[in-house]
Amino acid sequence: MAVRIFITGGTFDKEYNEITGQLYFKDTHMHDLLEMGRSHVPVEIRTLMMIDSLEMTAEDRELIVHQCIQCDEDKIVITHGTDTMSDTAKILAQKITDKTIVLTGAMIPIKFGSSDGLFNLGSALAFAQTLPHGVYVAMNGRYFHSDNVRKNKQTGMFEEVK
Amino acid sequence: MAVRIFITGGTFDKEYNEITGQLYFKDTHMHDLLEMGRSHVPVEIRTLMMIDSLEMTAEDRELIVHQCIQCDEDKIVITHGTDTMSDTAKILAQKITDKTIVLTGAMIPIKFGSSDGLFNLGSALAFAQTLPHGVYVAMNGRYFHSDNVRKNKQTGMFEEVK
Amino acid sequence: MAVRIFITGGTFDKEYNEITGQLYFKDTHMHDLLEMGRSHVPVEIRTLMMIDSLEMTAEDRELIVHQCIQCDEDKIVITHGTDTMSDTAKILAQKITDKTIVLTGAMIPIKFGSSDGLFNLGSALAFAQTLPHGVYVAMNGRYFHSDNVRKNKQTGMFEEVK
Amino acid sequence: MAVRIFITGGTFDKEYNEITGQLYFKDTHMHDLLEMGRSHVPVEIRTLMMIDSLEMTAEDRELIVHQCIQCDEDKIVITHGTDTMSDTAKILAQKITDKTIVLTGAMIPIKFGSSDGLFNLGSALAFAQTLPHGVYVAMNGRYFHSDNVRKNKQTGMFEEVK
Repeated sequence: MAVRIFITGGTFDKEYNEITGQLYFKDTHMHDLLEMGRSHVPVEIRTLMMIDSLEMTAEDRELIVHQCIQCDEDKIVITHGTDTMSDTAKILAQKITDKTIVLTGAMIPIKFGSSDGLFNLGSALAFAQTLPHGVYVAMNGRYFHSDNVRKNKQTGMFEEVK
Repeated sequence: MAVRIFITGGTFDKEYNEITGQLYFKDTHMHDLLEMGRSHVPVEIRTLMMIDSLEMTAEDRELIVHQCIQCDEDKIVITHGTDTMSDTAKILAQKITDKTIVLTGAMIPIKFGSSDGLFNLGSALAFAQTLPHGVYVAMNGRYFHSDNVRKNKQTGMFEEVK
Repeated sequence: MAVRIFITGGTFDKEYNEITGQLYFKDTHMHDLLEMGRSHVPVEIRTLMMIDSLEMTAEDRELIVHQCIQCDEDKIVITHGTDTMSDTAKILAQKITDKTIVLTGAMIPIKFGSSDGLFNLGSALAFAQTLPHGVYVAMNGRYFHSDNVRKNKQTGMFEEVK
Repeated sequence: MAVRIFITGGTFDKEYNEITGQLYFKDTHMHDLLEMGRSHVPVEIRTLMMIDSLEMTAEDRELIVHQCIQCDEDKIVITHGTDTMSDTAKILAQKITDKTIVLTGAMIPIKFGSSDGLFNLGSALAFAQTLPHGVYVAMNGRYFHSDNVRKNKQTGMFEEVK
């Protein structure tokens, strides 16, 4: 069965507006990345929102939870801003126990050339196919359980809490 | 414990010689990729050879088997040319059953900018951390058991044999 | 004789801070660009400032004028933010008539991969070597006299005023 | 009036065939480069051939001369393999004296990411707009008269003969 991919935005999908000099969202780069990776994993892609994760509301998270419950697939990858990725993971874990859900993102926008996004996507898809049911964060080549992960604000790296 | 990474060459590490117009090997790009991926997976990297996998001899494969047996780690990623990756996987599987060994590579040299190498490395590291003991090929976002994989020469994609 | 290159900042040299998500200045990418372009033009490079051109003061512009007058070379390329590039060009033209001065920049930071910076630098160096004394803006593959150029705020393109 | 651009192939436009591992020609990347450079130079582009310049015949060169004579524009840029670029320049100079013709190319294919092609194109377009009638090679940020240029086979750099 296919892997479900939900897009929520984050640095992963940010673009540079050359007129204003601001970062902004347009379309997801997911399809380009899967093509570049020559991926043959069957996937169903749906964009749920395109926002900075610092602006993600409780309502937005409810929508994500709802979509994860509703979809047919039991292997799910969610692209997400890194700042509150751990928070969304915890909420998902409270509500869903019969699926493998992997959140991932990027520290550098994919459009900026030397992004970690392609590496993270490769690992997230692999973790979604192999880990037992549960909610995980996949960053820095590793996976973290939703109840034991945080982003280190100084280094930008994800780490265990305990 | 760390993941052991063995480098054997392949398209993954090929460079373009701008004087002769030929592809050739210099150093591995593994360190650059791990840095770009912001990887925090503890790794031990060793270059065993730097060759096109069509030129890999039985002796070369014996060396790879030997190194996989000898190393302390039981999670191993091997970068390898795609043309004979399945062959090397089968030989490894005959000799080693108590480790998780994942072979990966690239269809486009990493130096050429739009390579699948970073995606493949992300997935290979993830599969090495999660799959049970056995020998696998990780390409196109998927993993294949060593006894059921081949490269489709027309499409360049990996597929099950049966 | 060498071409003098003065660096003043602008989008050309902006970087993405992956911790804060802000654009900022570190070092100039001039040397990387000249290497990528396999440039053999003899050059003398000096960084005068590293600022957004919207923040450039009258004092900053005096410094640029002074440096252009003081230097031995009579062929000068200045990298500059695009927003006020035309303003600085006009001021230079009022003070200096015995040198060929070419201002250039970029709409996309060089670090972002698909920048116009390498193209602009190639054209700016060429214009500096071939145009008669005067002050010019080199953008969009064209050159503009300092007294007849403005940036179109809607399109981001440079154009003649009259 | 527009600048005429003639495409003849060369490393500039080579691609990597990921199935065979060979370099080959498909379409020109000229349009992508002009877009990346945000070029607003009016141009007329025509592909005359797509070949390695080591395989260019006397007949091919006659065709190039013919096209340069026939076209309306008197500013012409020709993309060309670097190995015999100087030879074609000399032949053009024997036949055409009332136009500015600039030959340029690349040491690294544009598709390989860190190519000198974008830099060279920027300089070639600039030289075509500013140099007096004559035939020139534009490489390494410099321009060379057709009767005083050769490619240094050891370094890959262009240099004066005398």
